[in-house]
Amino acid sequence: MSFNTRLRETIKKTSMLCVGLDPVLEKLPTHLQTSSEPFFEFNKAIIDATHDLVCGYKPNSAFYEARGAEGIAELKKTCDYIKDTYPESLIFFDAKRGDIGSTNESYAKFVFEHLRADAVTLHPYTGREGLQSFLKYDKGCIILCRTSNPGSDELQGLLVDGKPLYQRVAEKVSADWNTNDNCMLVVGATYPAELAEVRALVGDLPILAPGIGAQGGSLADTLKAGLTAEKAGLVIPLSRSVIYASAAEDFAQKSREEIEKTLTQITTLRSLAQ
Amino acid sequence: MSFNTRLRETIKKTSMLCVGLDPVLEKLPTHLQTSSEPFFEFNKAIIDATHDLVCGYKPNSAFYEARGAEGIAELKKTCDYIKDTYPESLIFFDAKRGDIGSTNESYAKFVFEHLRADAVTLHPYTGREGLQSFLKYDKGCIILCRTSNPGSDELQGLLVDGKPLYQRVAEKVSADWNTNDNCMLVVGATYPAELAEVRALVGDLPILAPGIGAQGGSLADTLKAGLTAEKAGLVIPLSRSVIYASAAEDFAQKSREEIEKTLTQITTLRSLAQ
Repeated sequence: MSFNTRLRETIKKTSMLCVGLDPVLEKLPTHLQTSSEPFFEFNKAIIDATHDLVCGYKPNSAFYEARGAEGIAELKKTCDYIKDTYPESLIFFDAKRGDIGSTNESYAKFVFEHLRADAVTLHPYTGREGLQSFLKYDKGCIILCRTSNPGSDELQGLLVDGKPLYQRVAEKVSADWNTNDNCMLVVGATYPAELAEVRALVGDLPILAPGIGAQGGSLADTLKAGLTAEKAGLVIPLSRSVIYASAAEDFAQKSREEIEKTLTQITTLRSLAQ
Repeated sequence: MSFNTRLRETIKKTSMLCVGLDPVLEKLPTHLQTSSEPFFEFNKAIIDATHDLVCGYKPNSAFYEARGAEGIAELKKTCDYIKDTYPESLIFFDAKRGDIGSTNESYAKFVFEHLRADAVTLHPYTGREGLQSFLKYDKGCIILCRTSNPGSDELQGLLVDGKPLYQRVAEKVSADWNTNDNCMLVVGATYPAELAEVRALVGDLPILAPGIGAQGGSLADTLKAGLTAEKAGLVIPLSRSVIYASAAEDFAQKSREEIEKTLTQITTLRSLAQ
């Protein structure tokens, strides 16, 4: 089964939401800050409380790397916990990697074999040939197209034959890079107009749309712009708004409630769109 | 003192060469493969044997990540060894990072504070605003411009207003991103014609030119295309050809000899170019 088929089936059984596991020590509930494995304890509680509601988890490598080898060990333990306890939950490893082919072999080994992630975010800059070390796996390759940050237009908006670069990336990924049916795109929820343009270019290619919540993206606009005709094709990560919903001992329960609230909003918005 | 001034002074005292510390367990000398810290032992021997000949070291994160937390611990130990023993040697951390600003804060903390690296390779795709978390440090920001891999033309060669994208990146970095005099560019030694074009666009901005040796780049062509009028401005990493010069117990001595050989070639080529 291709990655994108697996993704579609997982979303059908759960939802298009995933949880961004981006722990920062100072923001964790006080009782966890002195734990010997604060990130793992934090993540585990959130995963246990939410796994039936979401299609997966999106740990961002930066937050683990910030604590060095210790952080990477807790990242590995988190990924192992997901794969061993809830094997149907997908791990979208948010690492934004991208090097020449021989180096990407090592990154892919880390991501897909050591961490057992189901998908990884990648920079398009080295081209399809450079990313072949990832693309050849039956795993998700989530290519940056239009990033959610305020200054993403500087390069991504440069016109190539009259079309902005991010649209050329979208077309290339959709037409040439997706031969294993395992490519997705990243388009920030902070750019609904651009999301709609990309959706029009790439058919039902799945799109990861980060930026709802702390970054200010609107759920309603994102669904309207990014859903396919079948009301599918989106993966929406919720990070800070969910994992820091409470800093008290009930943080995991509160993260579940935050997801339930968003799922209710999605149901309402979808029915309005009928 | 700005990073680029520091780089220039270090190169004057040593050379434009740096050593790519890209260990792969199966390729290490047999007697090190059973060590409890094989990467660190390997790196330390090479660093001790070469530190007076080179401006610094370029560990590529992928090779350490491939061994998970253990690999990252040995990366940290390698960086600490360099900074504590040979503080004038520069660490060019080859990680090709690049995310939105809030996430880059964590990457920058890892790279510049935890590892104490002097410089890091970065993807330009999120734009200057996204990379501000790195650019604000007095540390080197080495932006990918034209990568050394065979397929780099696919995106980097797309024409923007009649100019290939990599030239637009070079111009932006040189004109707008380098306000702290801490930017460099990556241009593959496998593309000497493109290197000459970039050099013509960016004045004396330092360029990291990987791809000599295993990837087939020519030292003569690279020097001819990439040196400034003052015969400076290049950092040339040597990786596989140096660190795997021998698989026997004399590997560190052989790596030194390989660098000495290259330095002799550089002297000859420079004198021919007078």
